[in-house]
Amino acid sequence: MLVHARDGGFDLFIDGRAILRHRPDAPCLFLGRGVERMEMYRGNFDIEDYVVERVPLAHAVVTASEDGWRIDCAAAPGSPIRLTLIVSGDGANGTIAIQSHDPGANRFWLRLVAEAGEHLWGGGEQMSYLDLAGRRFPLWTSEPGVGRDKTTAVTFEADRTGRAGGDYYNTNYPQPTYLSSRRYALHVETAAYSVFDFRHGAFHEIEVWAMPERIELFARPTIADLVTAMADRFGRQPRLPDWALEGAIIGLKAGEQSFQRLERYIAAGVRVCGLWCEDWVGLRQTSFGKRLFWDWQANDSRYPDLKRRIADLAARGIRFLGYVNPYLCNDGPLFAEAETRGFLATTAEGATYLVDFGEFDCGVVDFTIPEACRWFEDQIIGENMIDLGLAGWMADFGEYLPIDLELKSGADAKLMHNAWPVLWGAVNARAIAKKGRTGDIVFFMRAGYSGIQAECPLLWAGDQSVDFTRHDGLVTVIVGALSSGLLGNAYHHSDIGGYTSLFGNRRTAELLMRWAEMAAFTPVMRSHEGNRPDENLQIDQDEATLAHFARMTRVHAALKPYLQTLAGEAETMGLPLQRPLFLHHEDDARAFEIWDAYLLGRELLVAPVWQAGTNERGLYLPAGTDWIHLWTAERHRGGQDVEMTAPLGQPAVFYRADSSFGEVFKALAAL
Amino acid sequence: MLVHARDGGFDLFIDGRAILRHRPDAPCLFLGRGVERMEMYRGNFDIEDYVVERVPLAHAVVTASEDGWRIDCAAAPGSPIRLTLIVSGDGANGTIAIQSHDPGANRFWLRLVAEAGEHLWGGGEQMSYLDLAGRRFPLWTSEPGVGRDKTTAVTFEADRTGRAGGDYYNTNYPQPTYLSSRRYALHVETAAYSVFDFRHGAFHEIEVWAMPERIELFARPTIADLVTAMADRFGRQPRLPDWALEGAIIGLKAGEQSFQRLERYIAAGVRVCGLWCEDWVGLRQTSFGKRLFWDWQANDSRYPDLKRRIADLAARGIRFLGYVNPYLCNDGPLFAEAETRGFLATTAEGATYLVDFGEFDCGVVDFTIPEACRWFEDQIIGENMIDLGLAGWMADFGEYLPIDLELKSGADAKLMHNAWPVLWGAVNARAIAKKGRTGDIVFFMRAGYSGIQAECPLLWAGDQSVDFTRHDGLVTVIVGALSSGLLGNAYHHSDIGGYTSLFGNRRTAELLMRWAEMAAFTPVMRSHEGNRPDENLQIDQDEATLAHFARMTRVHAALKPYLQTLAGEAETMGLPLQRPLFLHHEDDARAFEIWDAYLLGRELLVAPVWQAGTNERGLYLPAGTDWIHLWTAERHRGGQDVEMTAPLGQPAVFYRADSSFGEVFKALAAL
Repeated sequence: MLVHARDGGFDLFIDGRAILRHRPDAPCLFLGRGVERMEMYRGNFDIEDYVVERVPLAHAVVTASEDGWRIDCAAAPGSPIRLTLIVSGDGANGTIAIQSHDPGANRFWLRLVAEAGEHLWGGGEQMSYLDLAGRRFPLWTSEPGVGRDKTTAVTFEADRTGRAGGDYYNTNYPQPTYLSSRRYALHVETAAYSVFDFRHGAFHEIEVWAMPERIELFARPTIADLVTAMADRFGRQPRLPDWALEGAIIGLKAGEQSFQRLERYIAAGVRVCGLWCEDWVGLRQTSFGKRLFWDWQANDSRYPDLKRRIADLAARGIRFLGYVNPYLCNDGPLFAEAETRGFLATTAEGATYLVDFGEFDCGVVDFTIPEACRWFEDQIIGENMIDLGLAGWMADFGEYLPIDLELKSGADAKLMHNAWPVLWGAVNARAIAKKGRTGDIVFFMRAGYSGIQAECPLLWAGDQSVDFTRHDGLVTVIVGALSSGLLGNAYHHSDIGGYTSLFGNRRTAELLMRWAEMAAFTPVMRSHEGNRPDENLQIDQDEATLAHFARMTRVHAALKPYLQTLAGEAETMGLPLQRPLFLHHEDDARAFEIWDAYLLGRELLVAPVWQAGTNERGLYLPAGTDWIHLWTAERHRGGQDVEMTAPLGQPAVFYRADSSFGEVFKALAAL
Repeated sequence: MLVHARDGGFDLFIDGRAILRHRPDAPCLFLGRGVERMEMYRGNFDIEDYVVERVPLAHAVVTASEDGWRIDCAAAPGSPIRLTLIVSGDGANGTIAIQSHDPGANRFWLRLVAEAGEHLWGGGEQMSYLDLAGRRFPLWTSEPGVGRDKTTAVTFEADRTGRAGGDYYNTNYPQPTYLSSRRYALHVETAAYSVFDFRHGAFHEIEVWAMPERIELFARPTIADLVTAMADRFGRQPRLPDWALEGAIIGLKAGEQSFQRLERYIAAGVRVCGLWCEDWVGLRQTSFGKRLFWDWQANDSRYPDLKRRIADLAARGIRFLGYVNPYLCNDGPLFAEAETRGFLATTAEGATYLVDFGEFDCGVVDFTIPEACRWFEDQIIGENMIDLGLAGWMADFGEYLPIDLELKSGADAKLMHNAWPVLWGAVNARAIAKKGRTGDIVFFMRAGYSGIQAECPLLWAGDQSVDFTRHDGLVTVIVGALSSGLLGNAYHHSDIGGYTSLFGNRRTAELLMRWAEMAAFTPVMRSHEGNRPDENLQIDQDEATLAHFARMTRVHAALKPYLQTLAGEAETMGLPLQRPLFLHHEDDARAFEIWDAYLLGRELLVAPVWQAGTNERGLYLPAGTDWIHLWTAERHRGGQDVEMTAPLGQPAVFYRADSSFGEVFKALAAL
């Protein structure tokens, strides 16, 4: 890090890259006050800010110190110092610590130097846009929305009926961290609502609705090195266990019928590594349909003799997975226990805070109470789940913490809202660690925030709509995997066939097949019946779909040795399994434009067909190598656009001509 | 006006009413800079502001002078003075002139003292809400939107296909002027984009995207006196001519067939005072449908021998009306003449600026060029229209001035955009005045801004959807009449049956009848075929509708002596014909809640049925008099809610038991 006082202001560099440029007539810092309006509707937020004050801190005085620099900032010469920046660090890692001297200030804006043509990635798990340039991204964990595109009828209906349509920036997993194509990364250490605004051209602007603790900077020679730096900073996932690579996890929620239905998959040649029954806790009938019973213990009437059946499956090499979330329904026994022991968050008046989830109310386990965490870890996850034999689960939610409840720690719920997914992930991770099962048991989360990397072994892309739409369909899984992967989340997967079927939107066989053939080229294959199983096509209801799926599970299983190698790269270098093309082709400008295709490791290039009704897929083959088409073995020169025939079962997948895994890949076409 | 320096700040009063309260820790003034994004799509605007700076001017120094007070405002003691307020005036009328000393500042915010339970009205012609309390109103002339309610399918489709859905605050006629129930009015003298923000409870906030010239204040003992003050300030309309009260103006656009169709109306007993043919200029075929040919002269092939036919009608006491707008299509001869003479606005590069209206392009007559105005007034309106025999016209548009064109005067188009409707109105008014026909020829406009009162003799409520919807249907006409009326616009009317039929939305006979029976109790009755005549029911296509309409025109014509008296009140007192209940019932708190019923003058209370499928209408009868039901002669005590039976043809209308027009009203039931 280097700070030059200059022209009455200063320039700040890391390893030669200009990051801040401050002049009295063009300050980079603004301080102020805002009054926000935040309303939550079942995890969807309506947020609006009334900015009362936004004062440029035009006057900055730089003082060199032993460890770095101190920059005192005021509105004008002679005015009180309102903010001090403490700058430290070397050419690789730097820190700008923020000290506010204005207790009334609750808004912070910082302008960063922008360059023409700069690409920006990150912001957590973004579902619509990999490159953040040119857009504004509020960073607040929430439901991502149904449709996420104000021009579609599904979004309109979701908005109209539940304010649930969402927009391009809504995500379960935001994170105020970005990577720049200028080979630096920036992280804002805060849990407050924040915004990355990349619309301005001449500068980027970061907005935080609190004083952030610090800005962290990372400079590296390559983008891959930056990703390693992210993984070093935010934590690594345990290595994905081999069992999860050996086939698909079949999602069924038919009670004990699930076991019989599983046999149909196996009989059809599906390679099965797990059976996932989220209804292991039983069901509740509501006018909306069947919902899970949110009291986290096996339901004997829906799954009689479950422990034995789990053991029977395990003997055949098939794991059993379940479901849990951080709420407790108030008509279940765990709620009563948690309430008695004071483990539930409260209202301002001290009553148990209840969240309405649609004809049932739930308490919120207060993870700021260490004893409550221990109870959840040991009794619920440890005894009720792990001891029963569960090898994994969906750790659902995390993004709904109401902002008007009281936490025992006294922390402001608005400042804990973004942090909540990480607390929730940590409860799951600790519960597994206490049993010594880290790296064996796998839970998967959709919610996240800075630090989820160290807690959650596997992201899941949330609840896509059961369609091919640009902002809520199949293709958003690619964007989610790539954006989160660049921040150090190595493992990502999705619900095969999508989840959300509303307003007449239904799964087609084509969608199921396209999704399965993409999922085969991701770390984990897992199916989901969706939110309305009875109204939507299931894999085992259609022979062609089932056969297609079976073949894709064989392809996936055959990739195991390659995926194991990639898991090693995740462990040693923090590299994600799914990677943007530019991660290995930094010198190819075209690679920076691609967001709907990816590298699986360095060797495989995957371009899923993500639109309906087409057997064609155009893509760009990066320069520097020849590429072998997986299904035809045709060799294509890199550095060109190709238009591939990609019928069902043959997504556009290539491997490097020079790959040491050539034999593994070559064998896939015959499966 | 009175300014008290106090507690390091000041209080400003007019006639005992606290208007401004300024303290160092709670300043009322903010200055700053913003960078707006404004995009226009055929009169619909997408507007967003990036506020770079918003600095509280916490330090104010008050100096008394001979004429009033000078208040110098700075961010802090010792900081430069950035703004000076020059306060003058007496207990009735006050002025706060604004002098900025900061050439970079382009945003101005002022907080006004608010009181609990305060009602606020005005903001121009507001279509959704009469009482502005609790909401935020951007003030920018534009299309009002189709649907204007983000929860309706019509709005969604309009947004999706043309960004044209609109919202509650969009209006053809905004005006930065409000009346408060605290018996004062406030006007911001500016043509810049501004916002009235009444959401904050503790204060109101005015936002202006420029330094406003001044804030004007008016204090009066009653609300009616405030309305008079508005009419005095902004100008009076000429008295509506008697001919316009003698029946309905029939809107037909069937070329010369219109004359035959008119006979059908007359034969059915319709009282006709005018025939309005907007297609007098001829038609143009586009893929959207038939459009008018925007070259303002009679089209001989569509209307052969028009001058004679107009004279024939006039001999029967029926006026002929036409249509004009401030654009000229570039395939018409007037465009060529205007371009040659340099009367058209240009691009930054000096080329003629063309506006795309959908398969045809138009030039914009530059009304900042006096010679261009004279040409439009004398040659187009004077010769082509008045000399032809036109007794009136729709003076359409005014709200579309593109913000990126160049005007000869050098004025910024962004600052002229709001002023444009008034310039357009003035061209029409002057053209008529030059012929000595003021008060005889009537033109009607939908667009407006501060000062339109002095130019336009008759407002028209714009293009409602052909339905009963809350935000774009029949009822919005009431809100439009009442809100604009309080600002001194005495005469208001609407398209009977609405105008906009899109996305499968079609006129019903019920709608036509409900609209006609409301229009009978407004200053002017005028029908419109709508934007898609062939797909929508026309009055003369249905016997029942035609008979209903005929009866309502007789009711309207029978009201002539009463309406003439009201026209006198408009002339002498500036009172609008349609008045909110509270205008004559200021002591009745319930009267302040009513927005969907109105007084026509002091004597008649009109509560139209504005919802579909009902024969009931609930309403509140103000206290202080008994009310006689128009159709049954039943007497009802004032100061109570009543639920009236209101079948088609019997809207809930009452007259005061003590009315001197009792005989006139009594006779209506028998018509």
